[in-house]
Amino acid sequence: MQIHLHQTHHDIADFHGIFNTFKFKLNGIAENHGIHLFPELFLTGYPLADLVVQRPFIDSYLKFLKQIDAWSTSLDPNPNINALIGGLDYHFDDQNLPEKVRNVAFHFTPGVPLKVVYTKILLPNYDIFDEEKYFTPGDTPSILELNGLRIGLLICEDMWVSSHHSVDPVQQLQNLIQSTNPVDLVVNLSGSPFHLGKESKRHSRGKEISSLLQAPFFYVNRVGGEDEVLFDGGSFAVNSKDLIYKGNLFHEDSKRLVIPDFLGITENKEIKNQENTWEDLFKANLNRNTTPVTLNTLLDEDMEVLLHGLAFGLQEYARKCGFNKFLVALSGGIDSTLALTIAKLALKPGQEIEAIYMPSIFSASISYELSKALCENLQIPLKSLPIKFFHSSIKHAFSDNIGSDLEGLADENIQSRLRAALLYARSNQSGAMTLNTSNKSEIAVGYSTLYGDSVGAISILGDLYKTEIFELCRFINKKFENIIPEGIITREPSAELRENQTDSQSLPTYERLDAMLEGILSYRLSLKELHELGFTKKEINKVYGLYTKSEYKRRQFCPIIKVRAKSFGFGYRVPICKSKFVNY
Amino acid sequence: MQIHLHQTHHDIADFHGIFNTFKFKLNGIAENHGIHLFPELFLTGYPLADLVVQRPFIDSYLKFLKQIDAWSTSLDPNPNINALIGGLDYHFDDQNLPEKVRNVAFHFTPGVPLKVVYTKILLPNYDIFDEEKYFTPGDTPSILELNGLRIGLLICEDMWVSSHHSVDPVQQLQNLIQSTNPVDLVVNLSGSPFHLGKESKRHSRGKEISSLLQAPFFYVNRVGGEDEVLFDGGSFAVNSKDLIYKGNLFHEDSKRLVIPDFLGITENKEIKNQENTWEDLFKANLNRNTTPVTLNTLLDEDMEVLLHGLAFGLQEYARKCGFNKFLVALSGGIDSTLALTIAKLALKPGQEIEAIYMPSIFSASISYELSKALCENLQIPLKSLPIKFFHSSIKHAFSDNIGSDLEGLADENIQSRLRAALLYARSNQSGAMTLNTSNKSEIAVGYSTLYGDSVGAISILGDLYKTEIFELCRFINKKFENIIPEGIITREPSAELRENQTDSQSLPTYERLDAMLEGILSYRLSLKELHELGFTKKEINKVYGLYTKSEYKRRQFCPIIKVRAKSFGFGYRVPICKSKFVNY
Repeated sequence: MQIHLHQTHHDIADFHGIFNTFKFKLNGIAENHGIHLFPELFLTGYPLADLVVQRPFIDSYLKFLKQIDAWSTSLDPNPNINALIGGLDYHFDDQNLPEKVRNVAFHFTPGVPLKVVYTKILLPNYDIFDEEKYFTPGDTPSILELNGLRIGLLICEDMWVSSHHSVDPVQQLQNLIQSTNPVDLVVNLSGSPFHLGKESKRHSRGKEISSLLQAPFFYVNRVGGEDEVLFDGGSFAVNSKDLIYKGNLFHEDSKRLVIPDFLGITENKEIKNQENTWEDLFKANLNRNTTPVTLNTLLDEDMEVLLHGLAFGLQEYARKCGFNKFLVALSGGIDSTLALTIAKLALKPGQEIEAIYMPSIFSASISYELSKALCENLQIPLKSLPIKFFHSSIKHAFSDNIGSDLEGLADENIQSRLRAALLYARSNQSGAMTLNTSNKSEIAVGYSTLYGDSVGAISILGDLYKTEIFELCRFINKKFENIIPEGIITREPSAELRENQTDSQSLPTYERLDAMLEGILSYRLSLKELHELGFTKKEINKVYGLYTKSEYKRRQFCPIIKVRAKSFGFGYRVPICKSKFVNY
Repeated sequence: MQIHLHQTHHDIADFHGIFNTFKFKLNGIAENHGIHLFPELFLTGYPLADLVVQRPFIDSYLKFLKQIDAWSTSLDPNPNINALIGGLDYHFDDQNLPEKVRNVAFHFTPGVPLKVVYTKILLPNYDIFDEEKYFTPGDTPSILELNGLRIGLLICEDMWVSSHHSVDPVQQLQNLIQSTNPVDLVVNLSGSPFHLGKESKRHSRGKEISSLLQAPFFYVNRVGGEDEVLFDGGSFAVNSKDLIYKGNLFHEDSKRLVIPDFLGITENKEIKNQENTWEDLFKANLNRNTTPVTLNTLLDEDMEVLLHGLAFGLQEYARKCGFNKFLVALSGGIDSTLALTIAKLALKPGQEIEAIYMPSIFSASISYELSKALCENLQIPLKSLPIKFFHSSIKHAFSDNIGSDLEGLADENIQSRLRAALLYARSNQSGAMTLNTSNKSEIAVGYSTLYGDSVGAISILGDLYKTEIFELCRFINKKFENIIPEGIITREPSAELRENQTDSQSLPTYERLDAMLEGILSYRLSLKELHELGFTKKEINKVYGLYTKSEYKRRQFCPIIKVRAKSFGFGYRVPICKSKFVNY
């Protein structure tokens, strides 16, 4: 028996595209006999959020389901072709409002309408996940019999286990197997978001399940970027010992596997019960062997995956918003440099990218020289639009019309906001998508100007700490022959908004700052624990104070491509107004 | 026996303030014998979102609980003083991570530590509510016996019922009463957000519960503004027929009631099972007796409550962010006029407000005259800062430095963004909080410039449609002797970003637009139904297209004070990138 893993790349609510993908996958392959596996919620896309309860979405989806059934029943029955497909199952109340919406697996075979064969039991409801808001959980394990094969069914989160969950779908399936007959395979239809380090955990847990249920485990995951969330694919098949097959990351993929390859090799081994709940996910990514603690450094293979994911996320957002041009405001600093470099490395044929440099009276001449050198290396056109004159005109107008001089913070921020206005004027003019250039450290302490350097359609660096920005630049230089001028990496970071300003005047070193932030943002460490890990009370209180006070800037931030378990953005939900409760 | 309803006004995570409030309420009143009722989550504030799982918050809260217990056990026992207080009950796993967090009622009596007496059963998880993300529900109804009185306990959502919920806590309490003994009273500790029209539903349902459980019903709700969400208070007591007492709206309140006043008057009546789930809340607020349908007009008493609530929400946000000055960019149009007027009406002693007028070459002279007349009426200083010169300088710079003229949309948007930069320069200079002036209609169709006229610390009009802006202005003029110049209300709306521009060139009439938007934003109506309700396919497709395409602007919007069941903001969660699935 053949198993086809269809790692699809489709967009939410694009029913026309989804239908075409489905028919193509079933018809377009040479040997389509066997069991075709499609991802979780393949028929709708994921995550849908409120679309699930919006009537125009519901109507379109129901119409689409009817189209599939009409198509299926127009085909000659063929029991050798079967598909398991993720989708939504709606039940309406007497007012025709959705009373129960279930995240289900449909069974498809030519000549027959779609049929629900399993309902997802474990609905993730932490961080970016709100599934309990929209879906009604299933409560029954399911074994499907197809052509003499017994198939254990799971949907995404169902494969994970936690002492914090009241149910364990794998255990339920195991109980069912023990009270009936063994299964020949276990499948998991997934729509699992990417974060760095998650893939190896999926493999380990897959092997555990294979061992527990004494059958090979097939995992099919979708590919796509949905606003800030990336789906990496990485579909795979394992037995209890080995990874038999692994699909591409961030790329559509279809693979035919043959069941006998997996037989006779499952065996028991110790079960660790790998968890995938927030308790497990949000571990602080800290090296506790240093004093003070430091962020764990990135491995080369991590950086490969990060660059791949960020480029993919950027291109997905651009494609869906209809952009083929990109625009970056270059300052001569390391953040805008990395954003521009990643965008350039991600560029597809026919796309364009442009940089714009907007110096003020506080911009060092080296900033321009480094920006120019970078753009020459990257072969990117660099426009220059000094703000000095506008800045001084505005200062005069405030003195003359308002009767008060622009000074201090007001004078710093107006430069940043003028640049944002000009950047977007250029974006409107050229039709280019503007990239945000902020990093996670800046965003965490509010070290940016709202409506100024914080603007952008999407942030590609906002889930990376400043020290990781440096690591990635060095990695890129190693890989691409020093494409980034060394001077950009070695100069002292500065916002250049006043005379001789440097970041180190207002912040701890980035090495210390990033480690403190990781402790705080993991939600795990108390301020007292941070102190015990080697930081001074003074710097902890300063960083924690900056963090809590800058919530209002994050609330108005653009989507940040998510590459970590805990990120700013949709899954980060913290009130703007709150007491700081610094308690030590 | 006396019941004290403490409608407290306290801030989230302000443990010091909460402790003081608690002690003051218990000690500072003349006759403190009896049962003191405090709102849901009084001890922490609400909504907390991720604070619930952040270690610094948890540590501070646990320390605070210990302080209360220490204080209590230092007091002489007095069984005549009892309090029921909402709070959180944490249970930790072996890694000291929060395994179960329960939303509970604590019993307090002097001399004794706090004791959990009830756990909230029904956790709201729709719209702005994410309680299932953070809390573990209770499953047991509770009757507390105090000094011979039997008290039925409920927390907030527990009082509501829905066919969409699998449990009905009122029914559970009723079953418990039937299997034991009658109760003398039923109490509901609430933290219930405001929206227009909700109060009367609370009263009706309270009477039903009184009838079902054959006892008076006491409801205590908190007061406060938490970012965009308002808590209106409105604590009350009912029997099955009558509203016996009703507390203030949007104001701290404490009331002593005596139980015998309620006795002997409960009776059965028909139960309607009033619902409070999203299915019931998000009914489209449309008058279906017109063709096309129209928004229901606001009643005078609704507008009183709205003005009260908006002023309260603005002041709450300002207080918590530490602002005593306000700043509004006046255009001479109706939105900025209403924002300025409401802010002025809300002004407290010692606070200041300023308006700034920033004309471009497209601003009509009447815009200045009307702005000036308004500011004279309101006695608000008006600054003038023309952008004409900056605008033309920037246009020249684009032609000269970029080699391309600023035209069309780019030329319109730069004016709006220049104004935003100048507005915030003034805000930085004077230390004033900047008010956003957008309305719900504009926000829904993206009829604003990102980082331009869409900026602000908080939006006070963003939950009101444009036609409601007009209604409120007329109501204010009726109430405050035509304080708003009539010319502002009667002139044709325009963004004044190009020659002779008017809103009606790009949009349907606001009457039609608002009704279509209400249909769409209620999530209830399909596009086909909108057509059947009297709109043309062309205008529906246009409005729906504008709505779906402008999600990216809403994602970066400031908090909008919530006055309706369904609002943009935290409870509105729609992907930016999605297919439009216009299906007819």
